[in-house]
Amino acid sequence: MYRTNNCGELNSSFVDQEVKLSGWVNKIRTKGFIIWIDLRDRYGITQLVFDKERTDTSVFEAANKLGREFVIEVDGKVIKRKDFNKNISTGEIEILVSNLKILNSSITPPFTLEDQTDGGDELRMKFRYLDLRREPIKANLIFRNKLSLEVRNYLSDNGFLDIETPYLIKSTPEGARDFVVPSRMHPEHYYALPQSPQIFKQLIMIGGLDKYYQIVKCFRDEDLRADRQPEFTQIDCEMSFVNESDVLKQFEGLILHLLKKFGKPVNNSFPKLTYKDALENYGSDKPDLRFDIKINEITDTVKGKNFNIFDNAEYIGCLVLPEKAELSRKEIDNLTEWVKRPQIGANGILWIKNSGDNSIKSSFDKFFTSDDLKSLIKNLGSKSGDLILIMAGTKKETLEHLGTLRLEIGKRYDYINYDLFCPAWITAFPLFEYDDEEKKFKSTHHPFTSPNEESLELLNSNPENVIANAYDLVLNGNEIGGGSIRIHDYNIQMKIFEILGMSKKEYESQFGFLIEALKYGAPPHGGIAFGLDRLAAVLNNKDVIRDFIAFPKNNSGKDLMIDAPARLTKDQLKDMTKK
Amino acid sequence: MYRTNNCGELNSSFVDQEVKLSGWVNKIRTKGFIIWIDLRDRYGITQLVFDKERTDTSVFEAANKLGREFVIEVDGKVIKRKDFNKNISTGEIEILVSNLKILNSSITPPFTLEDQTDGGDELRMKFRYLDLRREPIKANLIFRNKLSLEVRNYLSDNGFLDIETPYLIKSTPEGARDFVVPSRMHPEHYYALPQSPQIFKQLIMIGGLDKYYQIVKCFRDEDLRADRQPEFTQIDCEMSFVNESDVLKQFEGLILHLLKKFGKPVNNSFPKLTYKDALENYGSDKPDLRFDIKINEITDTVKGKNFNIFDNAEYIGCLVLPEKAELSRKEIDNLTEWVKRPQIGANGILWIKNSGDNSIKSSFDKFFTSDDLKSLIKNLGSKSGDLILIMAGTKKETLEHLGTLRLEIGKRYDYINYDLFCPAWITAFPLFEYDDEEKKFKSTHHPFTSPNEESLELLNSNPENVIANAYDLVLNGNEIGGGSIRIHDYNIQMKIFEILGMSKKEYESQFGFLIEALKYGAPPHGGIAFGLDRLAAVLNNKDVIRDFIAFPKNNSGKDLMIDAPARLTKDQLKDMTKK
Repeated sequence: MYRTNNCGELNSSFVDQEVKLSGWVNKIRTKGFIIWIDLRDRYGITQLVFDKERTDTSVFEAANKLGREFVIEVDGKVIKRKDFNKNISTGEIEILVSNLKILNSSITPPFTLEDQTDGGDELRMKFRYLDLRREPIKANLIFRNKLSLEVRNYLSDNGFLDIETPYLIKSTPEGARDFVVPSRMHPEHYYALPQSPQIFKQLIMIGGLDKYYQIVKCFRDEDLRADRQPEFTQIDCEMSFVNESDVLKQFEGLILHLLKKFGKPVNNSFPKLTYKDALENYGSDKPDLRFDIKINEITDTVKGKNFNIFDNAEYIGCLVLPEKAELSRKEIDNLTEWVKRPQIGANGILWIKNSGDNSIKSSFDKFFTSDDLKSLIKNLGSKSGDLILIMAGTKKETLEHLGTLRLEIGKRYDYINYDLFCPAWITAFPLFEYDDEEKKFKSTHHPFTSPNEESLELLNSNPENVIANAYDLVLNGNEIGGGSIRIHDYNIQMKIFEILGMSKKEYESQFGFLIEALKYGAPPHGGIAFGLDRLAAVLNNKDVIRDFIAFPKNNSGKDLMIDAPARLTKDQLKDMTKK
Repeated sequence: MYRTNNCGELNSSFVDQEVKLSGWVNKIRTKGFIIWIDLRDRYGITQLVFDKERTDTSVFEAANKLGREFVIEVDGKVIKRKDFNKNISTGEIEILVSNLKILNSSITPPFTLEDQTDGGDELRMKFRYLDLRREPIKANLIFRNKLSLEVRNYLSDNGFLDIETPYLIKSTPEGARDFVVPSRMHPEHYYALPQSPQIFKQLIMIGGLDKYYQIVKCFRDEDLRADRQPEFTQIDCEMSFVNESDVLKQFEGLILHLLKKFGKPVNNSFPKLTYKDALENYGSDKPDLRFDIKINEITDTVKGKNFNIFDNAEYIGCLVLPEKAELSRKEIDNLTEWVKRPQIGANGILWIKNSGDNSIKSSFDKFFTSDDLKSLIKNLGSKSGDLILIMAGTKKETLEHLGTLRLEIGKRYDYINYDLFCPAWITAFPLFEYDDEEKKFKSTHHPFTSPNEESLELLNSNPENVIANAYDLVLNGNEIGGGSIRIHDYNIQMKIFEILGMSKKEYESQFGFLIEALKYGAPPHGGIAFGLDRLAAVLNNKDVIRDFIAFPKNNSGKDLMIDAPARLTKDQLKDMTKK
């Protein structure tokens, strides 16, 4: 036996007990005749004390030779400390050590194992097993474990069955790139790793299992953007005999359960925004609703004053910033430079300062009279003290730029209340997007998404206007989930493949089994999938999902710790290429 | 809304309520003026009734046109049935349908969706989504879901953290073959799919997380034996600061928890057998303890009677079968033929019939006097009525054959009590096995298994005699779990690699990160992994794990439903082979 107790549970109620502890040497302080050691394990830190009077000489000498991160086992008596440490749960006691055994030694770690480490990202990933010892990373993984468990509890209590779908499946070249796996037993044939269990969960519904969930790894061989992982974890769910509102209600329940379990404040009903409204009001399909500022369109109001920027623009919109009329010219210039950076690419910002009735200034005073400006701010409902930032251009781009500017302003001027958790549903996405390059329609989500009943008749005449029974769940500006009602009707599914320009050969070789399955009594069904990595980060107000993954890959898809991907042996290559 | 209730919950307490149900048409009976339909969903079956007097003509006509496996939605009133069906929970009521909507039609399924289907294995796998509708398969998956959940509950309650390890890792050519995954971003470099998260869970322990578990897919590119799957699910666990008995105690707890939850009878403490004792007493390292018959060695007792078969044998052993002395010659011949089949390859069976003091016969009466036989059966403690079956040959093979015969006898003559669940630990495995072909030692389990402390000193002199701190959990003749205490000492790990004949280059390229990690204060640790597929089957007294997997592969690793593995497109092949 290595321990009677862990390093996080002893307190003054244990005083005078003999205990055995094991753990890591976290910190050593010595005063010559007395040595204090902070012993650390997953559960906490307990102070050990060795002193020349009360400790065996051999034990004292051994303690003197310990180094940081050594693993030790000690026997000793719990005693009251003179100087309480109120910051830790074990702060009232210490262990007077009678026996010390070194279980393992340690060389010096390549970075400090403190909350604020001196290790860079790459170094921390290379020595991830040491990074895991740091409190913040450990806490993230413990949180993630609890999050998974609460998701499972809720879904299980609501009748969902955890059903495993296969990892070695078939490649479907549509959409993102698959990772493929050569089959040794069937030369020139390949498995693919799933980008999601989409089709399998639909088949589970066709199989009559009614409610399915799985917390499952998914794989996408994409050129990685910052903070994207080639393998990521999805909370994947599907239900039968449901329409859109049934699904939204069920998963509002899940998110509310999680927010409550983790002590987050939340309103009990989630606002529902159409995709169109989200773009027009927030310039984003994942709006951050923790602050009120919205985009106002002023296209019609400001045209016709001989100001080219307005007169030539398809769309003009603005943001009204309360109590920012006194913002300095320099600060506005700084914002302007920020939106003009190539990552955003806006043309610039125009402004109006509403400092009260007789003091309205703008960056386009040449073209607008004082009355023009007054009328404009009146239309906007602007109050004295407001700063109004205006952007103009094509509608799509300008809304996007205003959305980006909105978020930056939210952060820069503390409009965002970081204590809030503001979920919302985004609904009524278009079913198709027209791809100008390939000159054909593509599915906004995937080809199994159901068109909504009202727009079914547009499938033939105006595919671009067909609305999907699809929905995203956004939380504090992050898309944390998305799903749809699926097509359960064979003929509609065929129609979709036709609109997507897929040949019979294409859809049959890729989805033949699903098409076949639709002939045997497929029930109406739909579902959703949440990104677990992102959800864990967002619930902790964090941006970097990597810190919520035990063994993440870097931005080029490499595991720096194990050095993967790597070359194969000749034998392995031979196995793979034999025909 | 598609339903107010499901098809498994209505009973007489709902009489007179208006309800809406959705489901599949399971069975149709018609008497001309009246139609009964069994409506089925995951939760059960509810009888619908349509009759010419009480049902709208249009609804009645529509009902008349329904086919099996059609998906329908009905409104109706719950009424009491005249003829109760006591076999189903909804047997007291039926629904008098007022409204019927066809949600989907169905063509005729390629096999019957009954408990006993007429579909062969391959057909059932090709249309797995239909097979899932059959009660036995559905019940298996629901059981598996419950099993996973109970495993998680127990482990979570015991402080284990669910931590996900990566699927895209590095190939380690030792052991079974890896499935590999070409990296597009790093040409000529490959990921591998994990055969188990072994090294990662050790790193999680080195990272101080103390107790880890995961229910995780593992992959082995083996030439498949019957009922092996290229991807399978493991309950993977690891603990720090434990010795062997700590681990056994913890996971006895898990198995007891499961047996209790699923209403299985069990003794509270598991017998512990050494690997050697298991082989010598049961001819197997996964003995079926549901019946008492053991192997008795009689080598020394029976030699020296000029009977060549005995005199030339390294080992002679027997099984004593109570109350089988009257077995016919034909039946013994049949057993003999059975053990001589090439799958087993034994030479034959000798026998003694103990029909009472003065009636002892044997198949080798020529060489043994009546007194010889009497003395022999006395030594064996045999009672009147026993049949004694004897095999002779090399020790290893003969024990194996006796073990196989023992199991066959257990089944054939009903010695096995199928109501029992008899778990046992097998311990004290040899650390190494000598590979006669490659002329070198191989790890019996894997190279990270710790030798036990008593046999450490044999590492240099007699590696073949070193005992491992390794253990298997067997249940009713199945190995359902296995694990070990791992090496946490850098120098011992190095020694093991040396004995295994691995060069520095080899072990550093494969396990460099683990070796490095051992330098930074690795704690003593150990763990276990259980096969979830097998565990689910064994707990249900079933042999075929495939029936406990939602989408299994066949014996050549093919998914017959989705037709994987498959060929890739030219573009995909190009992506993969670019340098």
